[in-house]
Amino acid sequence: MSGHDALRIDLDRLLGRLDALAQVGAIEGGGVCRLALTDADRAGRDLVTGWMRDLGLRVSIDAIGNVVGLRPGRREGAPVMTGSHIDTVRTGGRYDGNLGVMAGLEVVRTLNDAGIETDFPLAVAVFTNEEGARFAPDMMGSLVYVGGLPLAEALATVGIDGATVGDELARIGYAGDAPCGSPAVRAPAVRAYVELHVEQGPVLEAEGVTIGAVEGVQGISWTEYTIRGVSNHAGTTPMRMRHDAGFAAGAIAAEVRRIAAEMGGDQVGTVGALTLEPNLINVVPHTAVLTVDLRNTDEEALREAERRLAAFVAALAESEGVGIVARRLARFEPVAFDPAMVAKVEALAQRQGRSVRRMPSGAGHDAQMLARICPAGMIFVPSAGGVSHNVREFTATEDIRAGADLLLHLLLDLANG
Amino acid sequence: MSGHDALRIDLDRLLGRLDALAQVGAIEGGGVCRLALTDADRAGRDLVTGWMRDLGLRVSIDAIGNVVGLRPGRREGAPVMTGSHIDTVRTGGRYDGNLGVMAGLEVVRTLNDAGIETDFPLAVAVFTNEEGARFAPDMMGSLVYVGGLPLAEALATVGIDGATVGDELARIGYAGDAPCGSPAVRAPAVRAYVELHVEQGPVLEAEGVTIGAVEGVQGISWTEYTIRGVSNHAGTTPMRMRHDAGFAAGAIAAEVRRIAAEMGGDQVGTVGALTLEPNLINVVPHTAVLTVDLRNTDEEALREAERRLAAFVAALAESEGVGIVARRLARFEPVAFDPAMVAKVEALAQRQGRSVRRMPSGAGHDAQMLARICPAGMIFVPSAGGVSHNVREFTATEDIRAGADLLLHLLLDLANG
Repeated sequence: MSGHDALRIDLDRLLGRLDALAQVGAIEGGGVCRLALTDADRAGRDLVTGWMRDLGLRVSIDAIGNVVGLRPGRREGAPVMTGSHIDTVRTGGRYDGNLGVMAGLEVVRTLNDAGIETDFPLAVAVFTNEEGARFAPDMMGSLVYVGGLPLAEALATVGIDGATVGDELARIGYAGDAPCGSPAVRAPAVRAYVELHVEQGPVLEAEGVTIGAVEGVQGISWTEYTIRGVSNHAGTTPMRMRHDAGFAAGAIAAEVRRIAAEMGGDQVGTVGALTLEPNLINVVPHTAVLTVDLRNTDEEALREAERRLAAFVAALAESEGVGIVARRLARFEPVAFDPAMVAKVEALAQRQGRSVRRMPSGAGHDAQMLARICPAGMIFVPSAGGVSHNVREFTATEDIRAGADLLLHLLLDLANG
Repeated sequence: MSGHDALRIDLDRLLGRLDALAQVGAIEGGGVCRLALTDADRAGRDLVTGWMRDLGLRVSIDAIGNVVGLRPGRREGAPVMTGSHIDTVRTGGRYDGNLGVMAGLEVVRTLNDAGIETDFPLAVAVFTNEEGARFAPDMMGSLVYVGGLPLAEALATVGIDGATVGDELARIGYAGDAPCGSPAVRAPAVRAYVELHVEQGPVLEAEGVTIGAVEGVQGISWTEYTIRGVSNHAGTTPMRMRHDAGFAAGAIAAEVRRIAAEMGGDQVGTVGALTLEPNLINVVPHTAVLTVDLRNTDEEALREAERRLAAFVAALAESEGVGIVARRLARFEPVAFDPAMVAKVEALAQRQGRSVRRMPSGAGHDAQMLARICPAGMIFVPSAGGVSHNVREFTATEDIRAGADLLLHLLLDLANG
């Protein structure tokens, strides 16, 4: 396809950069704490932009702090872009996000060393605050980039420590002047976007597959239920006279599982948080607060899951004689990646002798924002044990090699298309 | 029966003593905090023993601090005893326990005023640490009294604040020398025991019945389950690969309800406490800890409920691939009160024109300990809203009158039998 089929990235060089970046904000156990726009994030950005300049990339920084390193092509015009993020959660791993950026730089280095020029420009992007661990929402930089969130609103966002995005961007020296999208201003033109990322789930490892050709990102429905019943003595209150918030919470947890089992497919459902009051062994709980996380790659199916749960909750409130108030915490529709991009990832993986499967992403990624303005796709590589957002996050070096080689040839293909 | 059918207690006098006692350790909202063997408990004991002496009772205090006020009869021998406790939980009400003691004193005063002598002696007892809120187990004083717990073991009990029962008894001046039972020493002889108590449940109020003729105390089975699964991303982990401690906890809560519903009768079941870790909306919980409270008046039925739950939990651990460890927190067999005593309560209530129903006690009471050494029984009066162990605990004055008048004539009957 590219005429450079034998071209390969240098694994040690890539691992070297991953390791060097992981030293910035390193925490015990091999993890990283580089919350967005902190001093650690600045140090990480300084390291990465220095590498970009060393590689001859033209570095631009936009008003929300997204960093783009451009490698010119034979022609002018919109670049083929890769990238990800380098911010982490408080006890994050060294692969989440970072791998996509480091692999992008390694692709550039490989092309530079081989003296290969592409038709269209190539770009490596570092998007601001993908994790949302300090400032909500997550994927903030890429969302602003594509014009999905007004810049002023993003800059005014107050974080968990009381600081604002705008102040912190200025403080760390990453409030740039390159254009980014806004509802009034057209987003920067991007020819195509592809992102290499660790799966953060167990599927690839469990099935012994090396490459995930990501078809899309699951839609997410987060609801918090507050159940108010009546507190009573667990011994003296006959069952028929109870209004038991604890039982109702348990019944919802069981129903969420039932819905996911009955619907099958990609439908997942989780009750991750649940608290009871007064939370005593011999008192019927008067209050329960629980969260339900429903996800599906298909919007209609996700709505069906929501409808089933809502009907169950309404009937439960009636039969148990409790009040149940639902509060929507988040709702994102599923994102489908460009089918041609998914097919390219799959075909290239097979050509490189890698096992590959199509799969959804259960987590959100910058690629889903870029999908609003250009053909976009993602490459997943296995996460050991499915562990992520954890210092124990790990991806085997041979899987990193496979993902980076695939990214190299996918970018070559797209930039010479 | 007693030849004094028209005799009645003085409601205002009884309410006056209840109110005076409620001032000791009074807390906001009309409640009381008199944890066992604290300064407040001492002040309450001083008030009550003073009243006992004023009434001409011979006050004795035993080695676990139980106070017994004796009113001699025409004959020597074991007394007919009434009583209860005056310790409270941290945010207790003014009726729980206190009513039984104050009503006992009011019965004595009424007999004194009427110049009535009984065949056998009468005794009003105040048992130490019925609540168990500071020192476990609950019903400690009456359990030691009947020889069910070695005195030395009780005295060595360390409370939630690090103090020991023995030290605190001595400190407040209630380490007496009257005999109490021990496995080696015979318990004091008691001819019969009857206790007036607030229901602490909603049944009497809900059914518009004034008097409960208590047939027995439910057996109690308390189990704590610790469930260990695997923490995973709520989006990226397919349902088939989950080991979800939160779902398992919810399923147990739903099953406890199912067991109680299917078994019917007196069977009750409660999941009162439940915590998840890490308790985050988008993380499959790796750990859940929950408690199950099962009660029944029939030991065989209670065992059946325990068997059903254990079978469910074992199958659940298998199907979900989680570890579930059960820890028994408490197990008491049901106690049946003396059938003749239950019949007497019922008949006397009807004779006094009170609505009455036979019922179990869902909570534990000193009477169940006395049942080990003599015919014992209880009289329940309604608790508004079934609320107890709460500053809002309330029993209507007319119900107090009905209960105390019934106690008066039951004691007369027993002491002249």
